[in-house]
Amino acid sequence: MPHIDLKNDFPGMRSLVAYSPETAAPMSAMTEILLRSKDGLQPAERELIGMYVSYLNDCFYCHHSHGEIACIYLGGDRELVEQVRKDYTTAAISEKLKSLLAIAAKVQRGGKFVTEADVVNAKANGADDKDIHDTVLIAAAFCMFNRYVDGLATTTPTDLSTYPLRAKQVAEKGYGDHIIKDKQPA
Amino acid sequence: MPHIDLKNDFPGMRSLVAYSPETAAPMSAMTEILLRSKDGLQPAERELIGMYVSYLNDCFYCHHSHGEIACIYLGGDRELVEQVRKDYTTAAISEKLKSLLAIAAKVQRGGKFVTEADVVNAKANGADDKDIHDTVLIAAAFCMFNRYVDGLATTTPTDLSTYPLRAKQVAEKGYGDHIIKDKQPA
Repeated sequence: MPHIDLKNDFPGMRSLVAYSPETAAPMSAMTEILLRSKDGLQPAERELIGMYVSYLNDCFYCHHSHGEIACIYLGGDRELVEQVRKDYTTAAISEKLKSLLAIAAKVQRGGKFVTEADVVNAKANGADDKDIHDTVLIAAAFCMFNRYVDGLATTTPTDLSTYPLRAKQVAEKGYGDHIIKDKQPA
Repeated sequence: MPHIDLKNDFPGMRSLVAYSPETAAPMSAMTEILLRSKDGLQPAERELIGMYVSYLNDCFYCHHSHGEIACIYLGGDRELVEQVRKDYTTAAISEKLKSLLAIAAKVQRGGKFVTEADVVNAKANGADDKDIHDTVLIAAAFCMFNRYVDGLATTTPTDLSTYPLRAKQVAEKGYGDHIIKDKQPA
């Protein structure tokens, strides 16, 4: 049960968006840019980074939500999402993405854990400054989202069959205004 | 030295705002609401929560920046800011704020560390649902800011005399558009 009366029955982040639309509006705008931009990292890569950081933060709602969105962008390749979750170092992804996931995992522990060697390695694998910037900010943003969702003990559906429908809506429409206005259950 | 070429010589968050104005715009809008709203928690309390979480995250730039802003809101009472930093449980602040700082410290470790007992205690000390919501989101947001600032190894002035001027600008003008447009050194 949520720690406070959220005045709605939505799950996870959706309940927080409905409870606090004034903070949700800029947060959704930031998320739209961070996770849907095709400038540099692609949306599937961005979602995989968010899913992985959420997994490390043990945020069930976020890691399954964003895993499902990544899955859609990957043409339904759930196996690849599972590989990244379980051990990204052996997953069928680029060396560039592996080196960015290594940076994201450091950011999850704390900003100062990222080393010059991590950055040199990412650059050697083809990452540019913007890729590294976006990776650090995506990982940092999920450290906020995960704490917001779990810090208020929002409702977390344990039935994984409920996640794909909402993921499809986000994959199609993004994180924009409809997130704020949408009052339909997931 | 920053991990990437930020194309400017600003310190800390300011260098990131200048490097990535498209993500900085919604982030600043969210910060303005979270830290400057006078609906419920007052700006001094909001800044103290942000300062304290930044201190726990060992983010020198953020904890001194927001400590200085809190100091201004407190009429220059730097001693009180120091008390909160060193041991908020014995600081000359309300029991309500102490119980909210306890929740913020749990969020800093991870969302799931917040217990029902923490929330019951905050409510017994006069906090309402919105105070608790805002505390969790402020603490979570600083877990993002701190990781963004340190994860890219932004320039951190160690001379504490450089912080008050910028703090005065933020206290007067807030976290709005001027943050994005301001190209003057701190």
